[in-house]
Amino acid sequence: MTAQLVLTALPGVPLVQEGDDLARLILDGLRAAALQLASQDVIVLAQKIVSKAEGRAVNLAEVVPSARAIDLASQAAKDPRLVELILSESRRVLRIRPGLMIVEHRLGFVCANAGIDHSNVTGCAPEPDECVLLLPKDPDATSLRLASELERASGATVGVLIIDSHGRAWRTGTVGVTVGAAGFPALMDLRGRPDLFGDLLQITQVGLADELAAGASLLMGQADEGIPVIHARGLPYPLRPGSAKELIRPEEQDLFR
Amino acid sequence: MTAQLVLTALPGVPLVQEGDDLARLILDGLRAAALQLASQDVIVLAQKIVSKAEGRAVNLAEVVPSARAIDLASQAAKDPRLVELILSESRRVLRIRPGLMIVEHRLGFVCANAGIDHSNVTGCAPEPDECVLLLPKDPDATSLRLASELERASGATVGVLIIDSHGRAWRTGTVGVTVGAAGFPALMDLRGRPDLFGDLLQITQVGLADELAAGASLLMGQADEGIPVIHARGLPYPLRPGSAKELIRPEEQDLFR
Repeated sequence: MTAQLVLTALPGVPLVQEGDDLARLILDGLRAAALQLASQDVIVLAQKIVSKAEGRAVNLAEVVPSARAIDLASQAAKDPRLVELILSESRRVLRIRPGLMIVEHRLGFVCANAGIDHSNVTGCAPEPDECVLLLPKDPDATSLRLASELERASGATVGVLIIDSHGRAWRTGTVGVTVGAAGFPALMDLRGRPDLFGDLLQITQVGLADELAAGASLLMGQADEGIPVIHARGLPYPLRPGSAKELIRPEEQDLFR
Repeated sequence: MTAQLVLTALPGVPLVQEGDDLARLILDGLRAAALQLASQDVIVLAQKIVSKAEGRAVNLAEVVPSARAIDLASQAAKDPRLVELILSESRRVLRIRPGLMIVEHRLGFVCANAGIDHSNVTGCAPEPDECVLLLPKDPDATSLRLASELERASGATVGVLIIDSHGRAWRTGTVGVTVGAAGFPALMDLRGRPDLFGDLLQITQVGLADELAAGASLLMGQADEGIPVIHARGLPYPLRPGSAKELIRPEEQDLFR
């Protein structure tokens, strides 16, 4: 049998507003794509629509920057109010340069600007430029809730990933990475799996959820919210409970933090 | 129209030997999958089969470690002969710990052990444990040659990626990344592309080839060489000349090297 991984961008997903029922939007999108959920399917969501549904848009005009935010903002050449939000979403600042602020997010991962998004965010302020979007509050929990709702509606056991695009050390360009996961083997442990010649492999842990996040991100594109939901079929590993936290390297094992 | 990205693992690709004609193997695999190459298709190859075809297997018994290799080997708790090969494939060593040696590869990217592979490598030494595999000599050039050969055979303009699995700063698990590319927009520059509301985006460069590498890697699996070639169809961006070098962050812009 020929193994195939098929990623489908669900059509017609409308612009998401605070309070929208994402499970309903996903099910509508599946219908529009003439897809029926089957067990082993995975739904990949752009974090942006999850954040919007959760009401994570913030009007910068309502943010009062602290003295520390004002100081760091001058180092980063950023709006002090944005820096205040970055700090409130972060455990600590790792690097700061003009135009660049790399932090350890409160959810554990390392990223620029605490994942706060500035483009295509409207509705929370009279001026679109004043409206920014924080990452979802608890993307693992949201993934789990959506997986349950999709299972209830379809009878199928599915995985759910919430993804963002992060920059990387050493390599240029952002790639899709997983910030929330449920029902998916986020980190796939191939330690001791026999290879072709029956020897034991050395330690190999694969960031499976990030691999799927990257592939789905490619299809989502970056500049518009038009295809924020991807349906994936053909994952060659069984689904299991999982969490995006599996993908965070503990600081004491991180030689590059 | 519903956008779809379809990744197909080509069946029946035999174990590769030095001197094998990879274009021929790819074309045979496409036939076995009942696929005809069309323009905009992309072929993704595991680096391992490219290295094998190029005869990059090395018998450790034939390697004489230098004094420096012996010293570093004791710090890394590795075979000094393997460390000698790592050094010969690298520009410099970035981090060294027991069990871990992270280098800047002569091709520019940062990775563990200079990408030298130890599993499922046979044929260069009486003992399989003594046989290791270096990365391809010039994976961009090989990608370009293969893209030309595939175009000549099919009439279709296709992209070719050669991929490996790399560990990452900050996150656990390896993910597929591109080490050689031709005919593919490795780094996709979305600077200035208008977003949904017509504003200009800030700088956004997407590591498109790495996103496809990751998705293809998911389907390849890690432990066997059985599916080292993936056919990808549905890339939502036009192909163009490209190189894996686009994905290497210049050191002076790298805050984590």
